[in-house]
Amino acid sequence: MKKIHIVGIGLLGGSFALALKKAMPEIVFTGHDASEKNLSDALALGLINEARTEADPDTDIVILATPADTLPKILETTLNQTGENTLIIDFGSTKATLCKAVENHPQRSRYLAGHPIAGTEYSGPKAAMESLLDRKVFIICEMEKTDVHLKGMAYEVLEALNMKLRFMDPEEHDAQLAFVSHLSHISSFMLGKTVLDKMEDDKNVFDMAGSGFASTVRLAKSSPAMWAPIMLENKKNIIEGLNRYITNLSKFRDKIQDDDFEGLFQEMQKINKIRDILDLS
Amino acid sequence: MKKIHIVGIGLLGGSFALALKKAMPEIVFTGHDASEKNLSDALALGLINEARTEADPDTDIVILATPADTLPKILETTLNQTGENTLIIDFGSTKATLCKAVENHPQRSRYLAGHPIAGTEYSGPKAAMESLLDRKVFIICEMEKTDVHLKGMAYEVLEALNMKLRFMDPEEHDAQLAFVSHLSHISSFMLGKTVLDKMEDDKNVFDMAGSGFASTVRLAKSSPAMWAPIMLENKKNIIEGLNRYITNLSKFRDKIQDDDFEGLFQEMQKINKIRDILDLS
Repeated sequence: MKKIHIVGIGLLGGSFALALKKAMPEIVFTGHDASEKNLSDALALGLINEARTEADPDTDIVILATPADTLPKILETTLNQTGENTLIIDFGSTKATLCKAVENHPQRSRYLAGHPIAGTEYSGPKAAMESLLDRKVFIICEMEKTDVHLKGMAYEVLEALNMKLRFMDPEEHDAQLAFVSHLSHISSFMLGKTVLDKMEDDKNVFDMAGSGFASTVRLAKSSPAMWAPIMLENKKNIIEGLNRYITNLSKFRDKIQDDDFEGLFQEMQKINKIRDILDLS
Repeated sequence: MKKIHIVGIGLLGGSFALALKKAMPEIVFTGHDASEKNLSDALALGLINEARTEADPDTDIVILATPADTLPKILETTLNQTGENTLIIDFGSTKATLCKAVENHPQRSRYLAGHPIAGTEYSGPKAAMESLLDRKVFIICEMEKTDVHLKGMAYEVLEALNMKLRFMDPEEHDAQLAFVSHLSHISSFMLGKTVLDKMEDDKNVFDMAGSGFASTVRLAKSSPAMWAPIMLENKKNIIEGLNRYITNLSKFRDKIQDDDFEGLFQEMQKINKIRDILDLS
């Protein structure tokens, strides 16, 4: 493998480049970003070797790491622009819309639908970290639709990054991620909003916040440019998750209202089993 | 200062002892715990020097670090049992009920209502850490009701632990903590429940969970024995916070339902200012 082109050199695209430069130092990285500032930061930080608006013809892999709503168009354009030996992988957080958008594209077999389960609340090339993807899960959807030879290059790269592969269909992916990722972001944003609004009565309320609050509200620092599109792309599943979450909160509130000590205790004790599940993973 | 007695030698009581043993090695620690297992663990771990059901007459400070619902009775008993030179400090997460319970006690001036803003999702003496209280906020309520001489001992100890003192009245304390602590715990428990229930459809849902989910759901590992009492003690404020949180979640869901990209984007961008507030504190 000689050349990789990255479109969108932010937290994910940049971390991918940093880690792979270390694991496979022979690879040349070119890249593009819609933001000139991000592009010049990415060059200055050495995340890419060269800025190019399009991938060179001898590019082995093009990585698309832009916000979810931009991916269908960029994926289609990139499939049209690149040649038969170039594999295109996206890193988008939702998969059903994108897989549907290219299902009839004559070059569909040169695309691999991917999703690295990794991130922080920060964004942009300066947030990139060499360790971000290390030993994380990488989900591949519709793997049978990707050319077997080109897919080999993806496995080579993902193995070099120590990523753990999981395979699932796009609808299953979106349904699961709504619960374990998208819902967390909403719960965190709305907790942040609730306490920010409380500041209007109590100016010093944040002074009393401990590490527990910081942990639950951390994701409220996330980028709206990345997250607003995800909310709409995965609308159906997220609304289902949110409705269940709101119902659970309302029932818990009613138990408090009814002074139901035993009910609250039992409920929290049951949920405590998440300790074992999380500590295993 | 020569002797401190700790009632409830778990995460908080144990961490207090560990840190103070280092800062003031001349102090002898005695202690009691309702759980025999906790008591023997505390002795084995060297958190206390000696197990005693009651404080010795020459004890300078008694620390009460038991669940919120047990505190009114333990505080009253301890005020009755101890002599005029002993200060009693509690570490409870709610303050209004407790301050009210002892407002007419003839020995009220030997009590200091405290709350260290520190914790983890773990509990018991084995969870104790020397660094837990270091540079954390310690809230004192109704400080004017505590004898000035006895209060001096509290300041000496809290300064030795590098704690930052804040003073407020019990009602203000409970109103603020409902938002920055108690609500976080509920949001986390209910997020945990929502995803655990989802496991019934999708057995492997947790396999897809990343660090963001782990962060928002961390507090769902917390002890029900500690948290069920807090929910009821601070009922009014928590229900107010929960209602606001549920309203915010419902409005955000409606924006998703209406495909209101701009509304979602603006809302998340406004909440992003929590970055500056949290990074300052």
